[in-house]
Amino acid sequence: MIITSPANATIKMIRSLRQRKAREASGLCFVEGIRLVTEAAEAGAELVQLVVAPALLTSAFAHDLVEQLARQGIERIEVSAEVFASLSAKDGPQGLAAVVRQRWLELAEVRLDQGARWVALVEPADPGNLGTIMRTVDGVGARGVIIVEPAADPYDPAALRASMGAAFAVPLVRTSWAELAAWKRANGVTMVGSSDQAATDFRQAAYPTPLVLLMGSERQGLSAEQQALCDLMVAIPMRGRSDSLNLAVATGILLYELAS
Amino acid sequence: MIITSPANATIKMIRSLRQRKAREASGLCFVEGIRLVTEAAEAGAELVQLVVAPALLTSAFAHDLVEQLARQGIERIEVSAEVFASLSAKDGPQGLAAVVRQRWLELAEVRLDQGARWVALVEPADPGNLGTIMRTVDGVGARGVIIVEPAADPYDPAALRASMGAAFAVPLVRTSWAELAAWKRANGVTMVGSSDQAATDFRQAAYPTPLVLLMGSERQGLSAEQQALCDLMVAIPMRGRSDSLNLAVATGILLYELAS
Repeated sequence: MIITSPANATIKMIRSLRQRKAREASGLCFVEGIRLVTEAAEAGAELVQLVVAPALLTSAFAHDLVEQLARQGIERIEVSAEVFASLSAKDGPQGLAAVVRQRWLELAEVRLDQGARWVALVEPADPGNLGTIMRTVDGVGARGVIIVEPAADPYDPAALRASMGAAFAVPLVRTSWAELAAWKRANGVTMVGSSDQAATDFRQAAYPTPLVLLMGSERQGLSAEQQALCDLMVAIPMRGRSDSLNLAVATGILLYELAS
Repeated sequence: MIITSPANATIKMIRSLRQRKAREASGLCFVEGIRLVTEAAEAGAELVQLVVAPALLTSAFAHDLVEQLARQGIERIEVSAEVFASLSAKDGPQGLAAVVRQRWLELAEVRLDQGARWVALVEPADPGNLGTIMRTVDGVGARGVIIVEPAADPYDPAALRASMGAAFAVPLVRTSWAELAAWKRANGVTMVGSSDQAATDFRQAAYPTPLVLLMGSERQGLSAEQQALCDLMVAIPMRGRSDSLNLAVATGILLYELAS
């Protein structure tokens, strides 16, 4: 049976996942496109429902994927092209999406073994930056991302897109600044912060592990209190007019230096 | 006299600058917000017209800026809040914008002196990436950006925003692949390309100057022909599921390595 009404109750629930409030309440997110659905499945994310528009789904690869996931017992909802378009944020929708369960770790579950590197982001505001940083964390082989709230939602569609699927592969923690500070003091992990005012060039420092790289928000950077919690503050030298780089670029530059 | 009609001919011309076609035809762009207008002015960009909405412009700093620019003889257009909103892409418009002349260099004007580092982007598709790369080029002290067309427009509002004003400080060249290849062969500048398949870890290479860092497009990377033009191919090691980083992140990581 193909759902043809955009007002269908299930479709309305899925459409509501555009809103963060509905994502938080349900613990779900909406994942669109053949590539992202594939990445979510391969990363072991829990796919709750597949949404398929047979009229749009022309890729043989995607057909095989849908069959394979259906054999694993994942519920499949078939919808008309019009209904799919009502859910889609894409100009050329591919006819495949999924409702996926969010996955969060607790701070207490973060393992700080030798070689472990985590990124902690203080109140990141831009979901694109957040997704891009998840992609870099995956790429460099860091362990995961600790998000200090209030922050952008890593399960925002823009964050998922920018992550290229890494959102499902990279462990995510959400916490408050007070909790993060208490956790850092309790376990003594090395924390490295970034500021254009720091005296140490990031290329001149040594980085023991386990380590947490602490990055401030796009607009504010790290506060004095946040810098005071760090064992080491490093600067990325700025030679031009600006005093900062894009948050995702700065995080990428530092992560690749830490890992080398 | 305050313009109160969104259909005013000057206002329509300015609004048309949202479209790339109109930007190309006029050689102009639309720069919105106190920060970006300030950056454009300080970087020596040619401000053709200031657009001011007195009802929205509450910042004393911005008032001083407007007075100072008016004294330099820059035409000032005063508009109602409604007209300003009809031009603005912002939710909370600040009441200040400018029409600014685009600035482009020819390839032949690129100076390849000792220490010079340029980035050449092959068909970058995302204006946000392009703007973020201009910001990084400014930050690291590289000389400028060579854009191989077809490409996103660095004078797109999203690119200008992401550049944080660096679009007006960083020299920009646009060219074709054939022209770039001929220019490289003619002057023998070292060209370094990036690919996940390259045998050399980017941290293990030496980077003579003058140098051009060649980056492929978001989707395609560098073609075999493009790689063949490079004197050196380097890889950023990828440890996770993905085979690539975001283009602006990868460019930032490589630029800071080249410059160190």
